[in-house]
Amino acid sequence: MDKGRPIGVFDSGLGGLTVVKEIKKILPHEDLIYLGDTARLPYGTRSGETVIKFSFQDARFLLKKKVKCIVVACNTASAYAGSRLERKIKIPVFGVVTPAIKKARSFSKKGKIAVIGTRGTIISGAYQFLGIACPLLVPLIEEGEVKGKLITQVAERYLRPLKKKRIGVLILGCTHYPLIEKIIQRVVGKGVSLINPEEEVVAELKNYLTKNKLLNQSKDPGKARYYVTDLTPNFQRVAEMFLGEKLEGRIKKVSIE
Amino acid sequence: MDKGRPIGVFDSGLGGLTVVKEIKKILPHEDLIYLGDTARLPYGTRSGETVIKFSFQDARFLLKKKVKCIVVACNTASAYAGSRLERKIKIPVFGVVTPAIKKARSFSKKGKIAVIGTRGTIISGAYQFLGIACPLLVPLIEEGEVKGKLITQVAERYLRPLKKKRIGVLILGCTHYPLIEKIIQRVVGKGVSLINPEEEVVAELKNYLTKNKLLNQSKDPGKARYYVTDLTPNFQRVAEMFLGEKLEGRIKKVSIE
Repeated sequence: MDKGRPIGVFDSGLGGLTVVKEIKKILPHEDLIYLGDTARLPYGTRSGETVIKFSFQDARFLLKKKVKCIVVACNTASAYAGSRLERKIKIPVFGVVTPAIKKARSFSKKGKIAVIGTRGTIISGAYQFLGIACPLLVPLIEEGEVKGKLITQVAERYLRPLKKKRIGVLILGCTHYPLIEKIIQRVVGKGVSLINPEEEVVAELKNYLTKNKLLNQSKDPGKARYYVTDLTPNFQRVAEMFLGEKLEGRIKKVSIE
Repeated sequence: MDKGRPIGVFDSGLGGLTVVKEIKKILPHEDLIYLGDTARLPYGTRSGETVIKFSFQDARFLLKKKVKCIVVACNTASAYAGSRLERKIKIPVFGVVTPAIKKARSFSKKGKIAVIGTRGTIISGAYQFLGIACPLLVPLIEEGEVKGKLITQVAERYLRPLKKKRIGVLILGCTHYPLIEKIIQRVVGKGVSLINPEEEVVAELKNYLTKNKLLNQSKDPGKARYYVTDLTPNFQRVAEMFLGEKLEGRIKKVSIE
């Protein structure tokens, strides 16, 4: 495997840009190829069968771009298709679910573990813990509702039942949730440790690339290329919200069906 | 054209079942074929180019089922692809936009006309009137939030600016909005006439079939067949919310890409 090849990242949409942001921070010399399936997002409301089909199309697109490994940034894709992709794709595949489970277990002395996610992620059962589906959080966050009364009200409604369960650890099982981390922390209480799967998967990725001598040896900052399946009207605003910076470089619309 | 053929109806998802409900009421002897593109909903957040592509795939599926005409139940599909479909499809195509515009104009003595819809419907400009995009209403309604504090709060936020504009007519430019008609009426005031495009398009359809002697001559109740592109976890509950009854008959998952 050529260590100079880019790392591939795919997501149902633009939320996976949080993973790109984390890779840029932790592995600044790596080149990146990002695919957001914006023509068919969200994955979180679809059946497992459809999410698996879409995820394989996403992965095959990245394979054609000659990436050295693939990060599945979308929790729902990772939950339904993660292990299948690992088995069938010939290069290493890193889903967000497994590293988050490991991290959560390392905190298990703190109390019970729970996870919040899309309906798909929770139904899949991939996260093996007490799960609560929070379907309204994604649309609210995509509309820029990351603080204020409305999002707080909805978060409280979903999360309040957790307070009676005495949980010690809560996995933020969707790329969008870290954007409202403070609100979530306030609702569940300071004592609960929040796990961000995006950080965990990038830590695992770094570990793997280091051990297997696959780190890019360049001294220059890595370059990122972005592909989407639809340039939606909302695209720029939402992308920059997740990436935390202006979206530089080439953004190209592609068809992957 | 064989008048015994079914009427085709397509929508981005399940909201178009309100049109099926209306056809069953107004044209009870007609057979129906419904296609909901549940694997790729919502259309309201996508680009025009993608909505046009998806709409033609939907229409072609119905053509293969030998329908006598096609009703485009989705406002966004109708707004972006309606006139293109009318030109290129060899059978009559009825979009929801044009009949709603006609009806609104007939009320124009009442004051200015405004329309609410998805971001796509409003950006398209198809509804030629003052438009307000209400992107959070669809996800809220799909989650069953059709009454109470949350939906009222969001509706007020979107609709309050209309009060200063002294509108007389408001088009409910999305299949989902009639489900919260009472809330909308309360927020904009009793004096504003609300137009429901689903009712208008079915009135136009009946008119056309009658004039052209294309009404089904059967004395039996019409049969409906339902196709979706994904059997989503939420499917049954949402479908029955829009249809207002148990979903009877055959529901089949199909691929239309």
